[in-house]
Amino acid sequence: MKLNILGCYSATPRTFTNPTSQVLEIRNHLFLIDCGEGTQVQLRKNKIKFSRIKHIFISHLHGDHYFGLVGLISTFRLLKREADLHIYGPKGLKEVITLQMKLSDSWTNYNLYFHELTSKESELIFEDDKVEVHTIPLQHRVYTNGFLFKEKEGERKLDMAAVFSADIDVAYYRKLKQGFDVENKKGKTVKNETVTLSPSKPKSYAFCSDTLYDEAKLPLISGVDVLYHESTFLEKNANLCEPTMHSSAKQAATIAKKANAGTLILGHYSTRYDDLSLFKKEAQTVFENVELGDDGKVFEF
Amino acid sequence: MKLNILGCYSATPRTFTNPTSQVLEIRNHLFLIDCGEGTQVQLRKNKIKFSRIKHIFISHLHGDHYFGLVGLISTFRLLKREADLHIYGPKGLKEVITLQMKLSDSWTNYNLYFHELTSKESELIFEDDKVEVHTIPLQHRVYTNGFLFKEKEGERKLDMAAVFSADIDVAYYRKLKQGFDVENKKGKTVKNETVTLSPSKPKSYAFCSDTLYDEAKLPLISGVDVLYHESTFLEKNANLCEPTMHSSAKQAATIAKKANAGTLILGHYSTRYDDLSLFKKEAQTVFENVELGDDGKVFEF
Repeated sequence: MKLNILGCYSATPRTFTNPTSQVLEIRNHLFLIDCGEGTQVQLRKNKIKFSRIKHIFISHLHGDHYFGLVGLISTFRLLKREADLHIYGPKGLKEVITLQMKLSDSWTNYNLYFHELTSKESELIFEDDKVEVHTIPLQHRVYTNGFLFKEKEGERKLDMAAVFSADIDVAYYRKLKQGFDVENKKGKTVKNETVTLSPSKPKSYAFCSDTLYDEAKLPLISGVDVLYHESTFLEKNANLCEPTMHSSAKQAATIAKKANAGTLILGHYSTRYDDLSLFKKEAQTVFENVELGDDGKVFEF
Repeated sequence: MKLNILGCYSATPRTFTNPTSQVLEIRNHLFLIDCGEGTQVQLRKNKIKFSRIKHIFISHLHGDHYFGLVGLISTFRLLKREADLHIYGPKGLKEVITLQMKLSDSWTNYNLYFHELTSKESELIFEDDKVEVHTIPLQHRVYTNGFLFKEKEGERKLDMAAVFSADIDVAYYRKLKQGFDVENKKGKTVKNETVTLSPSKPKSYAFCSDTLYDEAKLPLISGVDVLYHESTFLEKNANLCEPTMHSSAKQAATIAKKANAGTLILGHYSTRYDDLSLFKKEAQTVFENVELGDDGKVFEF
């Protein structure tokens, strides 16, 4: 699992910082999460292949989380994309994108599917044999969802020494990986657990931006391996959290601690601060394993 | 008159090139012309004060000419702008901007005026005591206007030596500048032209992007001091001009020549080309005074 932060500052794009966007690579999927203005340039700078993005998740319709989407959709067309594109985001997204296409008399030459979200309860919005994605309802000024990405349990791994000594034909390897007992070349049943090893533990990632401090999401993200939680403010401006419906670094850390998360990544910093290290410092008074998100940073788990 | 090119490449924003946007400084106005994605960052990089922009002109509703507008409008709000903002552009622009504001439940704290354009004839769309702006109807795949910016004739200049020797009271200087004859201290009429000089010649700038080669606009831009004309293609791809409704460098130069323009600035280059000098070379086979537009370049006239 690999997380590429394209942008993690709040409010406005600036000369050297970008609004929210990140790419999660998980079990061969490349999921784009949020798409602030300039995301397509950040994708280029970070050498991410446009054609590998097939699913885009938009948390909410504030500009710093989606103003780059319409341009990316247009660029996909200009690059002669053929693969389907699925977009998951709040109701209204389809209207605003298609209105802009209509006005420019420019339609996509690939299939574009909008999956509009309206539920205030968590939903399973994507699933295949390797991964599932659930919404995480967040508390913000407009309808907002975070997203929980969960790997599914993988296949069992062959213990090759044991497989050879049990004299099993290669034709049965698939079945072994799937957990079945098989017959060896002499017709004797071989118990699966004697020749295979447990699959590696499935990983999970929770993206939570933007949100007021809210414990209601704890059951959803309990035990998550990696939690990205917005931390717009430092303690000295914590009074701004409620009116703007954002969180402080300390609040993000409290959520990470109560959720028993593995690692907390901070981001969505207010552009009023110059020294990001203070975010880490304040968060670590509550929760040890804190990483500072920053534009261009890559985390591998 | 000063022209700051923020972006002048066609189609998609890339790591080192930007879609169309420019700032024209003329008689103390700062006019923003087109606003592709990333324009607000380009404004910052070029150290242009956001609050001085009070008028924005959008040529047409293809993304590479306006996808940066909604973000700029939002940023103005976040920067606590108070001054009115006037936006001139094709019908539909107001709907698409206000829809995005509605969805984000974010309204401006300054007055935002849309001046939507629908006429296929040239119109006077802005005028004060110093400058006027006319549309230049262009031929493109969607409804498109170029813009002609014209300084008005300035006041006459006092020839101070002559004014002193004619013994004119200082109270009459204003009238002299306005072209009137006045009485001197002895009650004798002094002819205006004997004590004043002609004002400097008013300058003009024509912005023409995007357009098929079209001579219909020649009467409008005849004698213009500076002409920005799109040149998407080189001669070797001139066959693409008609289907895409764009111009070649040579066609841009032909318009400059027939309009008897002072200087031609090229731009809106297709991103398929690496060597911009070929655009200048091809244009100069037709018209001598050619400049290559490029992101960050400033022209003073």
